[in-house]
Amino acid sequence: MSRLTGKVVIAQGGGPTAVINQSLVGAVLEARRFPEVTRIWGARHGVRGIVAETFVDLSEATTHNLERVAQTPSSALGSTRDKPDAAYCQRIFQVFRKHDVRYFFYIGGNDSSDTVRIVNEYASREGHELRVIHIPKTIDNDLPVNDHCPGYPSAARFVAGAFGGINADMMALPGVYIGVVMGRHAGWLTAAAALAGRHDDDGPHLIYLPERPFSIERYLADIDRTLQQQGRCVVAISEGVWASRDGKGREIPLAAELMRKAGREPQVDAHGNIQLSGGALADELADVVQKRLGIKRVRADTFGYLQRSFPGVVSSVDAREAREVGEKAVHYACEHHMSGSVVIKRVGDYAAKYELADLNEIAAQTRHMPDAFINAEGNGVTEAFRGYLRPLLGDDLPRLERLWAPMVKLGD
Amino acid sequence: MSRLTGKVVIAQGGGPTAVINQSLVGAVLEARRFPEVTRIWGARHGVRGIVAETFVDLSEATTHNLERVAQTPSSALGSTRDKPDAAYCQRIFQVFRKHDVRYFFYIGGNDSSDTVRIVNEYASREGHELRVIHIPKTIDNDLPVNDHCPGYPSAARFVAGAFGGINADMMALPGVYIGVVMGRHAGWLTAAAALAGRHDDDGPHLIYLPERPFSIERYLADIDRTLQQQGRCVVAISEGVWASRDGKGREIPLAAELMRKAGREPQVDAHGNIQLSGGALADELADVVQKRLGIKRVRADTFGYLQRSFPGVVSSVDAREAREVGEKAVHYACEHHMSGSVVIKRVGDYAAKYELADLNEIAAQTRHMPDAFINAEGNGVTEAFRGYLRPLLGDDLPRLERLWAPMVKLGD
Repeated sequence: MSRLTGKVVIAQGGGPTAVINQSLVGAVLEARRFPEVTRIWGARHGVRGIVAETFVDLSEATTHNLERVAQTPSSALGSTRDKPDAAYCQRIFQVFRKHDVRYFFYIGGNDSSDTVRIVNEYASREGHELRVIHIPKTIDNDLPVNDHCPGYPSAARFVAGAFGGINADMMALPGVYIGVVMGRHAGWLTAAAALAGRHDDDGPHLIYLPERPFSIERYLADIDRTLQQQGRCVVAISEGVWASRDGKGREIPLAAELMRKAGREPQVDAHGNIQLSGGALADELADVVQKRLGIKRVRADTFGYLQRSFPGVVSSVDAREAREVGEKAVHYACEHHMSGSVVIKRVGDYAAKYELADLNEIAAQTRHMPDAFINAEGNGVTEAFRGYLRPLLGDDLPRLERLWAPMVKLGD
Repeated sequence: MSRLTGKVVIAQGGGPTAVINQSLVGAVLEARRFPEVTRIWGARHGVRGIVAETFVDLSEATTHNLERVAQTPSSALGSTRDKPDAAYCQRIFQVFRKHDVRYFFYIGGNDSSDTVRIVNEYASREGHELRVIHIPKTIDNDLPVNDHCPGYPSAARFVAGAFGGINADMMALPGVYIGVVMGRHAGWLTAAAALAGRHDDDGPHLIYLPERPFSIERYLADIDRTLQQQGRCVVAISEGVWASRDGKGREIPLAAELMRKAGREPQVDAHGNIQLSGGALADELADVVQKRLGIKRVRADTFGYLQRSFPGVVSSVDAREAREVGEKAVHYACEHHMSGSVVIKRVGDYAAKYELADLNEIAAQTRHMPDAFINAEGNGVTEAFRGYLRPLLGDDLPRLERLWAPMVKLGD
């Protein structure tokens, strides 16, 4: 197959991560090596920038600037939540044809891979030779085929670090702590809290994932038992824990169910949808512990936006792999004349290898935690999960140390 | 004055910090050098461990363990929220007399320094020679006499880092972000958010401190104007912003006022106190922006417990100074036969020097942000504040870099 001359367009979609710019820079620097690449354009704010034709010329970015950007969290090109439909994808394709774009690299999650797939179909149908590569990223770690997704290890490192600090905090001033972690459909990021502990009695003592039904009574019993055994209880819970359904089979957010149990009615908007603020789940989960178990010191935090773009808390493994999937995307497109989605596979314990998967395998699917990673009680993770995550967290993890000094024995 | 032979008791009080164990270890290792110190006891959970006579023998901790503990956040001895009254302080003194304790080091904030002062008075009255030193720590940075307090620079580094990441996040996906930062009475920690920015249009664009009255209308106008100018708005706000008063002059939490404006009545407990959950302020501050300004993408986080014991986000300056105030405490007590509170003074730009202040100067007082550090509009900080904080944040701050690439000019 002959070399295909034309422009590269690269874009970033969906929620930012701490290493998504590594993939951007990996692809840009690698694409510069290919003489058939006439220009490298970055679309501002994902697909939105393509249809609006707002591009920056990455051929003119300095390598120094690019290398610094690679170490900066969040999406340097800007991102978008737009989920293109068929007409939108057709418009993307038209812009590509108009400007002789022959390579399209889209860094994103499930939705982005689906967009890439549809644009590719238009190009084939219209006989415009185009190579499209989806470059994976998501802190949710829920892309199929991949062993794990760039962005997840760094977010996991943040979550594990946060729970390590909170466990130490709760040892100093005991009580109950509930941390609500991102992840609406899959529990990968919440599960990362398990890596906080070194000693048998370190928190988090309980981990609740969206892969298992959540029972308030069970949650209270778990906390009560932990308090009796340890004198404190640290809980990690996924924001995606919305287990209940109303009489019509519709999902009721857990926070709303908790509010009703406490005798308060959640607000409902004009469309009948329950209105819940960002911190409602954490607040209600704390409230029910305080009231039902009579515990005075109950604290709850919603980790929110801190966990996905905190600077300086990056897994070295994640940074390297995010860079490499960007580079590999260019190899697949320019050297191997292929389209598809770059995926990460695991080799031994631990190395990564990269492959190109069919876009149909990736698009619009969600990979949940497998049963082998969740404990039988559904309130924690297994050693298999710890073994899976540990090598991904990277080097130089902060090591929290307990004071080892004997109690003074006082005779009376 | 002759050397005083007897035991050391050391304890940690109040909220944990990232470097409070540096002070503990500084004092313990230094006290080991003095032969008149017969034993070094650590009280478990602050003053509570003294009256309960639960001590660990720090003379038997290994230096390796102590050095690792020094780098671990939170209070390794355990802490307490107990605020001893006169009888409690008398009990502390009786335990000291019983066990021949001659040196008492208490690492803590305002309340701890007051405890130290009262115990000292009992000892003088009873003719028991005792040297007491208060070792400062507080992420709130609100101890008088001190230029700044150990623990604050590291928490400030976390807050500045968090807002740096969030600013990058909001550049990728624009909207309004509100981050609620710890600090009930003084705005020091919230103000640290200002150090997140490098470019003129970097967030946080607005900073609200408890030192200034808070107006909801002003807040909305500020955000509206920022959105028009920048297309996004990042807000840092202190949890201590509770400006309103009801008809009887009682303080009404701002969150409750916001709820009432939105037509919802906050819960009141049996004592008539307004019940507000941890995330209520952030949630209500987001809600009012969404409803009144009609902005769709409004996000709010309460930083909560992450900001005070996150591992690995420590200012090198803070770690060193926290260590040194522990060491200096021992020098003042053992070499100079003095009692008091160790304070940090600033020399030039930048070095620290240590002095011993009278306990009466420190105890139970709060140091607010001076007017020179707050802008005229009351919605931001001054360059003087930035100059004050910058050297405290330590080395190797993550440097967030923007992509510099020219827009592609497309002829039509």
